[in-house]
Amino acid sequence: MYSFTNDYSEGAHSRILNALLETNLEQTSGYSTDYHTEKAIELLKKKMDCEDVDIHLLVGGTQVNLTAISAFLRPHQAVIGTDTSHVNCHETGAIEATGHKVLTMKTDDGKLTPSLIQKVLDGHTDEHMVQPKLVYISNSTELGTIYIKSELEELHNCCIKNNLLLYLDGARLGTALVCEENDLTLADIAKLVDAFYIGGTKNGALFGEALVICNNELKEDFRYFIKQKGGLLAKGRLLGVQFEELFKDDLYFDIARHANKMAILLKNALKEKGYEFLTDSSTNQQFPILPNDIIKKLSEKYSFNIERVIDNSNTAIRLVTSWATNEANVLEFIEDLNSI
Amino acid sequence: MYSFTNDYSEGAHSRILNALLETNLEQTSGYSTDYHTEKAIELLKKKMDCEDVDIHLLVGGTQVNLTAISAFLRPHQAVIGTDTSHVNCHETGAIEATGHKVLTMKTDDGKLTPSLIQKVLDGHTDEHMVQPKLVYISNSTELGTIYIKSELEELHNCCIKNNLLLYLDGARLGTALVCEENDLTLADIAKLVDAFYIGGTKNGALFGEALVICNNELKEDFRYFIKQKGGLLAKGRLLGVQFEELFKDDLYFDIARHANKMAILLKNALKEKGYEFLTDSSTNQQFPILPNDIIKKLSEKYSFNIERVIDNSNTAIRLVTSWATNEANVLEFIEDLNSI
Amino acid sequence: MYSFTNDYSEGAHSRILNALLETNLEQTSGYSTDYHTEKAIELLKKKMDCEDVDIHLLVGGTQVNLTAISAFLRPHQAVIGTDTSHVNCHETGAIEATGHKVLTMKTDDGKLTPSLIQKVLDGHTDEHMVQPKLVYISNSTELGTIYIKSELEELHNCCIKNNLLLYLDGARLGTALVCEENDLTLADIAKLVDAFYIGGTKNGALFGEALVICNNELKEDFRYFIKQKGGLLAKGRLLGVQFEELFKDDLYFDIARHANKMAILLKNALKEKGYEFLTDSSTNQQFPILPNDIIKKLSEKYSFNIERVIDNSNTAIRLVTSWATNEANVLEFIEDLNSI
Amino acid sequence: MYSFTNDYSEGAHSRILNALLETNLEQTSGYSTDYHTEKAIELLKKKMDCEDVDIHLLVGGTQVNLTAISAFLRPHQAVIGTDTSHVNCHETGAIEATGHKVLTMKTDDGKLTPSLIQKVLDGHTDEHMVQPKLVYISNSTELGTIYIKSELEELHNCCIKNNLLLYLDGARLGTALVCEENDLTLADIAKLVDAFYIGGTKNGALFGEALVICNNELKEDFRYFIKQKGGLLAKGRLLGVQFEELFKDDLYFDIARHANKMAILLKNALKEKGYEFLTDSSTNQQFPILPNDIIKKLSEKYSFNIERVIDNSNTAIRLVTSWATNEANVLEFIEDLNSI
Repeated sequence: MYSFTNDYSEGAHSRILNALLETNLEQTSGYSTDYHTEKAIELLKKKMDCEDVDIHLLVGGTQVNLTAISAFLRPHQAVIGTDTSHVNCHETGAIEATGHKVLTMKTDDGKLTPSLIQKVLDGHTDEHMVQPKLVYISNSTELGTIYIKSELEELHNCCIKNNLLLYLDGARLGTALVCEENDLTLADIAKLVDAFYIGGTKNGALFGEALVICNNELKEDFRYFIKQKGGLLAKGRLLGVQFEELFKDDLYFDIARHANKMAILLKNALKEKGYEFLTDSSTNQQFPILPNDIIKKLSEKYSFNIERVIDNSNTAIRLVTSWATNEANVLEFIEDLNSI
Repeated sequence: MYSFTNDYSEGAHSRILNALLETNLEQTSGYSTDYHTEKAIELLKKKMDCEDVDIHLLVGGTQVNLTAISAFLRPHQAVIGTDTSHVNCHETGAIEATGHKVLTMKTDDGKLTPSLIQKVLDGHTDEHMVQPKLVYISNSTELGTIYIKSELEELHNCCIKNNLLLYLDGARLGTALVCEENDLTLADIAKLVDAFYIGGTKNGALFGEALVICNNELKEDFRYFIKQKGGLLAKGRLLGVQFEELFKDDLYFDIARHANKMAILLKNALKEKGYEFLTDSSTNQQFPILPNDIIKKLSEKYSFNIERVIDNSNTAIRLVTSWATNEANVLEFIEDLNSI
Repeated sequence: MYSFTNDYSEGAHSRILNALLETNLEQTSGYSTDYHTEKAIELLKKKMDCEDVDIHLLVGGTQVNLTAISAFLRPHQAVIGTDTSHVNCHETGAIEATGHKVLTMKTDDGKLTPSLIQKVLDGHTDEHMVQPKLVYISNSTELGTIYIKSELEELHNCCIKNNLLLYLDGARLGTALVCEENDLTLADIAKLVDAFYIGGTKNGALFGEALVICNNELKEDFRYFIKQKGGLLAKGRLLGVQFEELFKDDLYFDIARHANKMAILLKNALKEKGYEFLTDSSTNQQFPILPNDIIKKLSEKYSFNIERVIDNSNTAIRLVTSWATNEANVLEFIEDLNSI
Repeated sequence: MYSFTNDYSEGAHSRILNALLETNLEQTSGYSTDYHTEKAIELLKKKMDCEDVDIHLLVGGTQVNLTAISAFLRPHQAVIGTDTSHVNCHETGAIEATGHKVLTMKTDDGKLTPSLIQKVLDGHTDEHMVQPKLVYISNSTELGTIYIKSELEELHNCCIKNNLLLYLDGARLGTALVCEENDLTLADIAKLVDAFYIGGTKNGALFGEALVICNNELKEDFRYFIKQKGGLLAKGRLLGVQFEELFKDDLYFDIARHANKMAILLKNALKEKGYEFLTDSSTNQQFPILPNDIIKKLSEKYSFNIERVIDNSNTAIRLVTSWATNEANVLEFIEDLNSI
């Protein structure tokens, strides 16, 4: 059984593990005040060509989202997102648990637009309703799509105009930034959003997400929030060592490219067979719509998630590739598909 | 510079790292639904000779405390602890951030007693005050002391009698259970408390704490709380692999014994020099009271924390040893002490 | 200018004020432990023919909703409501501020059904999502419609089957229970829901809502929650005196009947003119769809709220009547309408 | 049985009731957007000789405290108060329920000082602890004592110096401002604190507290918080009418003077008998220490609260007077005392 279920099925890239081994017996101070964290942050700032950001390394994505969003908002303020956004439907109400409503708009492709945001604003006009304040987007989205530069600029302008904050969940930012249609850089993002995070867990690290706070007004006292929400790792160096390794050269992007390449192999093979897709993705999540009997057959040898029932005989599934996906297994999958 | 600052200055015990290396490319399901987690839980249950507990593996101590305590209490209920308890003064109000007051009593040795608990109960008699509900203790305590079996039984009985929950923070449970005065076993603890955790971070793991829920009424839906608070690790297998390694034989206890042995070397040397201690600890935290000039001299070669100013010329410091402490460095410290 | 804006534009029914005057200098104990509160609760229990409920008198509706719902739910549990439900869109995220997500379904008439509830349940299947637990309905609804007995029974059965709680917001319960289509009694409701409240503010009282907790498991320690949320009125007797007066005979229902009668006068006149309505309401909120120029004309003499833009030339407005609405003003409104 | 239990045993001053009667059938807009509220706020600003404050009228004290404090603080910030402060021990953890720790210092007289505040600050130095931010004081205090101008100035300076907010709970501000030792005015207070409230419930109103926000940075969006916490009264005019009546001339201060006068009668009589007091109060709460048999005897005819057990034979009780206290009953109490 080979798994295309997600991009966190394996441990870490071998270079990450080696770095952890090599630094294992160094004595460092705790709670991300160590040399490796400092070095990792320096490298990240260099990659995004920007010194004027605060960077914090945390363990996981839900933790980053809930810590950052609850720190950025006052009690009466709410999040605007799509109905498929991770904070809305896959984090067990973590944002609401910190006191904030998540306002959502339906979309086909998982992407927010200024006009969708405007609809939310139009519906929230006085103190009997929450005050929409933070726009949450994911890149790549939960449906594999990405934002191109002009789209992010439009969101940025919409937020400036309406006094909103723009927050980008980059759990899968690696594959977004190296996919074919992408024209964004880390430097662009740092200029266009108020805060975002660079996901490590789904791109080669054992765990770890780098939260980048770009808006000066959101920076103050942030370490208090990390600690209060239980996210300040005692051996914070583990995060530092991993991000140091991912960004001391282009490892982070190289392995994301591999993930995408594997995904495109799958995509092209499925397209050639004439199958439709739920969304047009060029990143490491593909959502082909397949006849149920094909799905049944494939699931004998491969594991993957069901995304959505389309009709009585067809279902959209989710195939996810990663830094660890073997090309041999991908080719075998394609062969199996063709031979059904 | 050698550090006695804490027990999380280094990475992990080499056996832990090897286990992570060996399992690295296995494909497993995420979020602690994997084989290694299952196996680790099985081993833990065996060690505590009890099948009837629920065990969850989480990343860090503050995370465990806030997740468990907020899950166990209703909104009007409060925690009873000592003024030195970790949840009261070193977690940035994490418990209060989930809505619950922490009621504290002053102690010299960091240990709660039934009579201290009774005083809190006597002061909280109606609905204009919070309802004290969960007794929080640490073993070993933040001051290095431990609870012996009869003391834990008394707390257990006090809690039963007053309809309170008993929760034990075991961030340093390893060193508590192998120290000289100890007469408790994991099995005893599982019988006497409603929930506790077995700390990995401070005893050989890269990170990880095993929360054990003994009281049936506290078990339901617990994974929801872990996810909501951002504590459900995507690659949960990392926790499983580590606890599997720590408990597949007696590694967990063996390395705790080493930590204590190093601490006792320090303690005895300091005692021989005639120094007093803030508390009588036989675990891996020692709190000698030293003249300030001695402290200044020692801090040229060794790092450690200041615990408390005693008077104008004397200060209590904290020396912490761990699985990673080198005997050579301990002996050098003693030599330096003797030669000052 | 005469106002049909809402049912809380005036003070209180004269009998309520008289009762407050007559009891003004009595010395009573505070915080709803007084004789009048006791008496009011006794009368309410008699009216609902049920001794086995707990009743608490609070000041306002949002306060009741947030206090009750946050007391009834565990942290990972969510509310199910319609998109128009008061807790979703007119309480500034009060429920989310206590940590709970509100899951909503779109409806035309503001009424939940078992099949809508089932859709929410189907979409929430594991610990990565909140756990739907409490079904929130209003009667009459925010759109003036009501639940008849068979509908409430179906909701009750659906909740029993799915281990859900059924909560009824009765801010406008008076007008619901005396309208033409109604076949429910207070006694029925007390049998079919887990908790509900009987609204006083919108039916003759200065303020005040009577929360009735029917489910034994939800009763414990409830006064703690009222106090913690700031809802325990020092001079609780004021609530007691008012509900005593409303329920010592049928004042509560008599004045609700008046409100409905005034509404039906408006409804019939509008219908005769051939106007459509947003919903079919026989209670004190009417939502006629009128040409914009008619609305403009009417608003010179009458105030009312705009409910929804229908198209370029038509808009649904909301006309609200109450215990205090003068028939003379209603007739004048109708005359003005006819003469436009 | 005559009650000295508290200052909210009766309804409202007759002038308040009359004002409610006279305005009862006026139609006004809801939620404190009415004419009477506007007028009351204007009068209050005039009394404190300050236009540059925001004033909000709420129903009760716990509601004001929790709404204001949770609006003013960021999630990691804490309150500094005395151990006897109302928010610490008589509001069922309302502040903690909004996520904030209350840090307390022991005092004899219920009054905070800069040196007590400094001790709290010294103990909270990094992000592993909450950040002390808001100083909570009551005037008069829970023990009947008051702050004179120089004391409030010192607290003000201490707060400025340490970047803290100063918040004054004025549940009993009326009696504080008219007592013999007082040298503060409403205008002084408005200059020296960041926010405070003027209590109506305990000084002649049916209910109602006027929150005054002096610090510009705390004003924004405050009505959202009132609504979210359930404190936005539908018939907000009721608050407006009451405060209008209390402050259109000096009724508020006149009736507070009566309360104090009654208290001083009690105080002098008790002093003459040679009894000691828990604190030296010149306001409407007196805490005489009486032999237990005297207390037993008195409680046959009078009700009052027990404050604290002093020793085996003596207990401090609390006698509270108010606008409604009859001089005849006070004199009878004194007579009874003298004749025991």
